[in-house]
Amino acid sequence: MTRAQLYEKILQKQSCLCVGLDVDTERIPEFLKSTDDPVFEFNKSIIEATADLCVAYKPNIAFYESLGPKGWDSLQKTMDFIPDGHFIIADAKRGDIGNTSAKYAQTFFETYNADAVTVAPYMGEDSVRPFLGFEGKWVILLALTSNPGSMDFQYFSDSEGIMLYERVLGLSAAWGTSENMMYVVGATHPESLYRVRSIVPDHFLLVPGVGAQGGSIG
Amino acid sequence: MTRAQLYEKILQKQSCLCVGLDVDTERIPEFLKSTDDPVFEFNKSIIEATADLCVAYKPNIAFYESLGPKGWDSLQKTMDFIPDGHFIIADAKRGDIGNTSAKYAQTFFETYNADAVTVAPYMGEDSVRPFLGFEGKWVILLALTSNPGSMDFQYFSDSEGIMLYERVLGLSAAWGTSENMMYVVGATHPESLYRVRSIVPDHFLLVPGVGAQGGSIG
Repeated sequence: MTRAQLYEKILQKQSCLCVGLDVDTERIPEFLKSTDDPVFEFNKSIIEATADLCVAYKPNIAFYESLGPKGWDSLQKTMDFIPDGHFIIADAKRGDIGNTSAKYAQTFFETYNADAVTVAPYMGEDSVRPFLGFEGKWVILLALTSNPGSMDFQYFSDSEGIMLYERVLGLSAAWGTSENMMYVVGATHPESLYRVRSIVPDHFLLVPGVGAQGGSIG
Repeated sequence: MTRAQLYEKILQKQSCLCVGLDVDTERIPEFLKSTDDPVFEFNKSIIEATADLCVAYKPNIAFYESLGPKGWDSLQKTMDFIPDGHFIIADAKRGDIGNTSAKYAQTFFETYNADAVTVAPYMGEDSVRPFLGFEGKWVILLALTSNPGSMDFQYFSDSEGIMLYERVLGLSAAWGTSENMMYVVGATHPESLYRVRSIVPDHFLLVPGVGAQGGSIG
């Protein structure tokens, strides 16, 4: 999906909402547990209830992967069920040396046909670039994550007061464009949004952490 | 596998060798391509040829994941085929918020019964700790990776000259112990080994990058 198409969807629906699909099998309602594929059935009910309201879905890959091959089948069925026109984010936090990142890109962009994948920046440019070579596909790079551990390294700062997350934004903005790259900036860091926007004024941001993690929309 | 058991294996075999299992389907020999599971058959031949010589195997998860559910079946068969007494590293570079990392830990330590998993540190303590709660299982945390992109962020340094990889080592050493944590320190950074060892003198190191990536054993 291109930037223009995504922007149009947002305007059309008057919504920036992204719905997470993180099915914890222990939380699936009893009446779905006896079905052939409870994970898919649960996702199906969520998607049916939200498709009108959101522009994106974000399956959290860990929750499928932990179930073995049948979990990946549930993921595939879930992604096939998402109505056309929704932006699909594989929340996978991958990132490895070049040829390995290329395999991860193939996984999510070709095997599963997601529009975007979340990528961790620790290993630098050659770990991110392989994800950027797919037309209409996006990298969503971790900058400031929403969890408590975001304080451990992301605010580590150099002698000029530049923090690691700012360096990540600054360097990586040159690897891609605002047409194939977005950033994770947690809703738990509203005080840093000004600095983020001063470095990447035009990029879409994925803003997790509203609700249970303490962030707010306001 | 405990530290003592691993140490004993190393002494017994007079080897620290870890064999990667990164099957690129394009490189599988022709005579194996017609078998039911070429990826497994190729791994089988590698394992048969090396089991006497190495103490560890390291399947690179991207190469299985990219093949969809059948790739995970090949991974399972490969791991089942590795003779007892070898240390198995799931090279996955995972790391996410706490409940998601817990799912990844479940994937590799329970669903696939690996001894260790490689973890990326960017998201900090709560993204790493869930991997540390499994008896006899290990986190191998990225400190200095072997790829060119390791220069982008891992050497980012604060006003006192402490570099990010040193902060990763220093902080994370308190999250686990030398009984459940190792570090990735690429063979392409021999000049930094002294600093690594001054921070974590007792931890095992996984040292990738010998050969094609330009590192050497000497």
